[in-house]
Amino acid sequence: MKVRRSNRLVDMTRYLMEHPRTLVSLKFFSERYGSAKSSISEDLSIVKHTFHTWGEGRLETIPGASGGAVLTSFYSKENAQRAIDNLVAAVNDDSRLLPGGYVYLSDLIGRPDILRQVGRLIATQYVDKDVDVIMTVETKGIPIAQSVAMYMNKPFVIVRNSSHITEGPTVSVNYVSGSVRRIKKMELSRRTLSAGANVVVVDDFMKGGGTLNGMHSLIKEFDANLVGMTVLAEGNATNGKRLVDNCTALIKVDAEDGETKSITARPGNFMTTVFD
Amino acid sequence: MKVRRSNRLVDMTRYLMEHPRTLVSLKFFSERYGSAKSSISEDLSIVKHTFHTWGEGRLETIPGASGGAVLTSFYSKENAQRAIDNLVAAVNDDSRLLPGGYVYLSDLIGRPDILRQVGRLIATQYVDKDVDVIMTVETKGIPIAQSVAMYMNKPFVIVRNSSHITEGPTVSVNYVSGSVRRIKKMELSRRTLSAGANVVVVDDFMKGGGTLNGMHSLIKEFDANLVGMTVLAEGNATNGKRLVDNCTALIKVDAEDGETKSITARPGNFMTTVFD
Repeated sequence: MKVRRSNRLVDMTRYLMEHPRTLVSLKFFSERYGSAKSSISEDLSIVKHTFHTWGEGRLETIPGASGGAVLTSFYSKENAQRAIDNLVAAVNDDSRLLPGGYVYLSDLIGRPDILRQVGRLIATQYVDKDVDVIMTVETKGIPIAQSVAMYMNKPFVIVRNSSHITEGPTVSVNYVSGSVRRIKKMELSRRTLSAGANVVVVDDFMKGGGTLNGMHSLIKEFDANLVGMTVLAEGNATNGKRLVDNCTALIKVDAEDGETKSITARPGNFMTTVFD
Repeated sequence: MKVRRSNRLVDMTRYLMEHPRTLVSLKFFSERYGSAKSSISEDLSIVKHTFHTWGEGRLETIPGASGGAVLTSFYSKENAQRAIDNLVAAVNDDSRLLPGGYVYLSDLIGRPDILRQVGRLIATQYVDKDVDVIMTVETKGIPIAQSVAMYMNKPFVIVRNSSHITEGPTVSVNYVSGSVRRIKKMELSRRTLSAGANVVVVDDFMKGGGTLNGMHSLIKEFDANLVGMTVLAEGNATNGKRLVDNCTALIKVDAEDGETKSITARPGNFMTTVFD
């Protein structure tokens, strides 16, 4: 079967998007479409040029007999700003206020369109870093970690609050939860993280930073390396004190649960951290 | 700016894949590329033909002034069989056996390539059903639910094992956990599910079916409708009895934790349920 260029471009784009950050060989495409490698190379130039033009990512082409292409999706500065503005608008809603200054975000964390934007934003931050694994803590961090993992094509691991039979042997650490000022315990299955692994930590919401701090301790316990920490939203620290000082936040939320009840969302430090 | 057909095809495929099961108008593409609607219509025919040829999904084109296109990704029978075989091979590994006949699956549930296949398989099952929301229970069901949600472009909701401040008001039910024969409690935030919603329930692993049964009770409590239940893996029921009888499983796992310790994975009832 010989496939025409127009059909090759569509299928190639689909295939590369389903296999992000993976080297797909010229040979594979050449056999798939019954086309010469020189034609495939020309196709890949078109794909590369298109992604670049629209600020949607980059296609790296590796020349030579064992060559191929790697697609990396990310946001240009302009597209990232638009995504951040979308998130701010979605959270800026007084009905999200919960008792104690908490913010209701569960609906957003279950929306595919929001998760694509969040995942792609965070993947953009770490696009040129050497990352082996994404880490989060159950429960609401999981959708964030998965979205990032899908764009980066790296596995994610879930830290749990208590032992579960189905995890096998685990390593645990104690940590101080900033928002409730209590000693808690978190643990991770021994099999899921290797010594020396480069880890990006993500979560849905940061108040005091205790949970993020706990994950950092766990990373040290596994002799792994922390690359960076990013959360969807940063709230007000309960006592004004943060246990971590190097966390990136997509948005910042002021939740007033006093006499006036209101939510004010605005962009976090993401844009200045990533693009300046 | 006028964009050439080859670049339009690449960007259009990317855009449609980033907005699955969403009507994208001819007008939008026409303005984006500075091209006549008649040219865009021809482009869409090429995209449609390509997805059909490779068994990767379908593009529905809606004619007329307010028309456009909707991309739905799914597996052809042949591609689905290949994905199921991949899953069986990944699970068929005696080192996955945990005490008590449990199976270690946490690594697979954190792998983007596996999650894409699982999500797309389950989305294929419900492709022609009217579905409003995907439901799962924390923790390991979440990645499954999210993968399905991304392909179906529907939100997912997470049932939790205990009350959390950040969920707001909740509705709870008691259920019998088949595998540990104990009464447990699960709950769902009141805001996340509407009366009359059509719900697909997914989870990572089924033994007795008690958890799935609990989610079915919760759906009734919200006056919503159960469309179907699908799990990644079905194990052996502890006492040979199942609490649900209409669940689809991608794979079936026999875990022998007696004198001989072994794991045997094989295809579940998915292929016969979906394609026969």
